[in-house]
Formats: sequence, C-alpha cells, structure tokens
Amino acid sequence: MNNFIKRTLTGIIFVGVLLGGIFYNVYSFAALFCIITGLALWEFYGLLKHYENATLHRIISTLGGMYLFFACFLKASGLADSLTFLPYILFLMYIFIHELYTKAANPINNWAFTLLAQIYCAGSFSLLNFIAVHPGNSTNMPLYTPLFILAIFVFVWLNDTGAFLVGSAFGKRKLFERISPKKSWEGFWGGLVIVLIASQGFAWYAPEINRLHWLGLAVAIVLFATWGDLTESLLKRTLGVKDSGNILPGHGGILDRFDSVLMASPAAYCYLEFFIRN
Amino acid sequence: MNNFIKRTLTGIIFVGVLLGGIFYNVYSFAALFCIITGLALWEFYGLLKHYENATLHRIISTLGGMYLFFACFLKASGLADSLTFLPYILFLMYIFIHELYTKAANPINNWAFTLLAQIYCAGSFSLLNFIAVHPGNSTNMPLYTPLFILAIFVFVWLNDTGAFLVGSAFGKRKLFERISPKKSWEGFWGGLVIVLIASQGFAWYAPEINRLHWLGLAVAIVLFATWGDLTESLLKRTLGVKDSGNILPGHGGILDRFDSVLMASPAAYCYLEFFIRN
Repeated sequence: MNNFIKRTLTGIIFVGVLLGGIFYNVYSFAALFCIITGLALWEFYGLLKHYENATLHRIISTLGGMYLFFACFLKASGLADSLTFLPYILFLMYIFIHELYTKAANPINNWAFTLLAQIYCAGSFSLLNFIAVHPGNSTNMPLYTPLFILAIFVFVWLNDTGAFLVGSAFGKRKLFERISPKKSWEGFWGGLVIVLIASQGFAWYAPEINRLHWLGLAVAIVLFATWGDLTESLLKRTLGVKDSGNILPGHGGILDRFDSVLMASPAAYCYLEFFIRN
Repeated sequence: MNNFIKRTLTGIIFVGVLLGGIFYNVYSFAALFCIITGLALWEFYGLLKHYENATLHRIISTLGGMYLFFACFLKASGLADSLTFLPYILFLMYIFIHELYTKAANPINNWAFTLLAQIYCAGSFSLLNFIAVHPGNSTNMPLYTPLFILAIFVFVWLNDTGAFLVGSAFGKRKLFERISPKKSWEGFWGGLVIVLIASQGFAWYAPEINRLHWLGLAVAIVLFATWGDLTESLLKRTLGVKDSGNILPGHGGILDRFDSVLMASPAAYCYLEFFIRN
C-alpha cells in the first residue's frame, strides 16, 4: 500500500473515530478520551523511559493518568464529589514512595518525568471534561455539550491545513526556525484567518454565544495550538526523535496528532470559563 | 552562641510562629502556609537549579506555587469558584511555552523539575486548605477548624521525638539503612505508640470524632510522615547535600523541617475525606 493511500485511510479512520466518540454520547466521549489519554501517556513514557538514567514505571503511571481523566469526568458530571480524587492522590504518593524501594539510578528524574507526563498529557485531556460535561438536573445522565470539543478539533485541523496551504504558497519569513524550520509567519496568519472565518460558522449554529466570543475563542485556540505544536517539536528535538510513535500509520504517534490540542484545550477551558460561564 | 542554644531558640520561635499562625484565625493560617509554601519552593528550586543541566525560573515558579496555595484557599473557603484556578493553568502553560524562547540546554529537565516541585511542595501544602477551611454559612468569614492541622503537626513532632528517644535507647534493627542509616524499627514503633496515645488526648477534646478514627488518623500520619522523611533523605542523597538549606539555624532548611508533613498532610486529607466527611 503506498504511503498516500495509507495516510488517507488512517486519517479518515482517525477523524471518524474521533467524531463518532464525541457525538455518540457523553459516555463514548469519556471512554474515547480516557483511551487517548492512556495512549498519549504510554507513548510519552516510552519516549522518556531511559532518558537521563530514568527508569519509569510505564504501566502504573499510564493507568494513574487515565484514572485522573476518569476522576475528572466523574467530578464534572456530578456523579461523584471530590472523593473521586483520593485514589489519584494516593497514586501520586505511591510514585514518590516507590523510589525508596527500587535503588534506581536517579529517583529525581523518575519522579520528575513521571509527573511531567501527568500534567502535560493527563492534566490537559482531563480539562476537556470540564469544558463539555456538567451535572444533570434530575436524572443521572450528565449534561453534555460536545460543541466546544468539536470546535477545538475543527479549529486545530483547519489551522493546520490553512497554515500548510498558505505557508506552502506564500511562506517567506520563518516562524520559529530553530525548532520547526518549515513553519512560516505567512502560514500562521493564513491558518488564523481560516479559523476566524470558521468560527463565524459556529456562531451561526450556536447563536447563544456572542460572535465576538467565537472570534476570541478562535484566536486563543490558534495561538496555543501553535505553541503546543512547537512545544512538542522542542520535546522531540531534545530527545532526538522524529516522530513520537508509530501507532497511526503515515501520521506518526498519538502525541504528534494531539500536540496542538494539548495546549489548545487548556486555553479553550480558560477562555470559556472566564468569558462565557460567568 | 553555642549550637544547643541556637537550636533551642530557633525551635521555640519556629513552633511559636507555627502555632500562632494556625490558631490566630483562618487568614493567619492561610498567610503563614502560603509563605511556607513559597520558602519550600524557593529552597527546592535552589537545590535543583543547576541539576543535570537544568536552568530553572526560580522566582516565577515559586510565585506560581504560592498562587496555587492561595487559589486552593479561595476555593476551599467558598470565597471563589473554580475561576480561581485559571491563572494557575496559564502559569503551567507559561512554564512549557517559555522554554521555546530560552535556548536552554535541556528544556525537558526544566519542565519536569519545575512541575515536580509544584506537586511535591505546593500541591501538598495546598491540601491543608481542604482539611481545615470550609465555606461559611451566611457571613463572608469561612469556617475554620484548626484542630486537624494541629493534629498533623503534633503527631509528626511526637513521632520524631518518640522515634529518636526509643531508637536511641533500644534501636537495633535498621529501618532503611541505605537511605537513612540512623533510623531503627524500634524507633518507628516507639514513635507510633506515642502518637497513638496522643491521639486519644485529641479524642478527649474532640469527642465528635470516634476514638477509633483518631487511632486510624494517627497510624496514617505516622506511616506517611516516615515515608516523607525518607523521601526527602533520598532526594538529598541523590543531590549529594546534607541539609536542604540553612534558613533555620541549627535545624537546616524548610524542607528538612517539613519533609514529614509533605506526605503526612495528603495522607491526613485522604483519611479525613474518606472516613470522617462522608
């Protein structure tokens, strides 16, 4: 199978699974992103497994981060109160205490890299729950608003596409040559303009939110998605790897596909909490 | 001034400031522990400043962790809702993004060590708010129950004293020779017995909580305080330092004084949330 067909097929399946999980219902949303959190952590811990004498506990740390996502889902949905975080606190203490018993070469790196991935991957994905899930009124079914989750992904994809097309055609001034030599300022502005236009489509579907706020959300997502992309590039450059993994044939790893979302989703959460919810 | 007098004076002032801050009112509690969080972070970042090619941003990271404590106080007291965490989320993103612009030797270590201290110091102290502070009923003054904060410190101090005295007199079997060669199992059991007895004094003052639960809380605190002490010893051993700092003449640094509390307070939080609040 040639690479173009492989890339296209993987892309279609990837988008299909993602949109299916987001739109089917609140539980499919939670299950999908819990699994994605796990895959991202597994990949991240694989990358740093032996970095600077570290010896990471890949399985338990991946499960711990997946539990954080699950706990945030329970909390956001009102299905559980703050008790839901106790196992995660115990997990964090376990990470520290465990090193007492292992005679590891560098316990400080083990602690630090383990926690880095928890915040970078699990913390970031967990915020999606607080964007889209809220306690239900009378039934046990939580309220679920997939619109903002969709917006994050559509904006990130359009930004990537727009930046690539405009950058390929008109790119001259380098955006960040040291870290990501192919990106240009022209591409950045092209991506931004396309996302700003798309945001007005969302405003048309969701008129309960001000058109200006859709523009604001678009700016926040494009800005932080770009930083997120660059941050993962810096991570890979420091580690000396080209792709974060190979789970998505032709597209690299999970972190390669979600690097922008890892920063765009906390940015979207902050924007929505600050400007819309209050 | 000879060392014994210096140690005694420092000890008296230390205990006085701590008890004064805990008992004066809820705001002195919050201010005191916000400052202690800052001192702990400052010391921690000082220790890891140049570790393995790291270049940490000591001031901003210390302020970020102090803000986490403050945000948790506002949330626990009901004076603010989850909006209070937005600046902290922005701070975490800043930590990542900042490395794009610094040409640092090892951005991964900078991220990881910065976040390690946030969880180890700021996360741990921040939980004290959720132990002792709750929303007030009608006035703006939060409810404040200093009893459990006092219990954590009294149990930790009595455990240290008991373990030292019993260990000095009867210590034979090493508790953890590789990491902390002076500790013995006899000392550990001695400390535990003294804290179990003291817990019944607390039960006498606070009969609304079951005697058995005071025993359970005592066991949890002694166990995790010991692990906390060993964890900080492992940290110092890995770094090759004897004391974490010298802010407390004759007693070393802030982390040396609070190492046990850093683990005892999350353990106490988990115990109280699980067994008492529900």
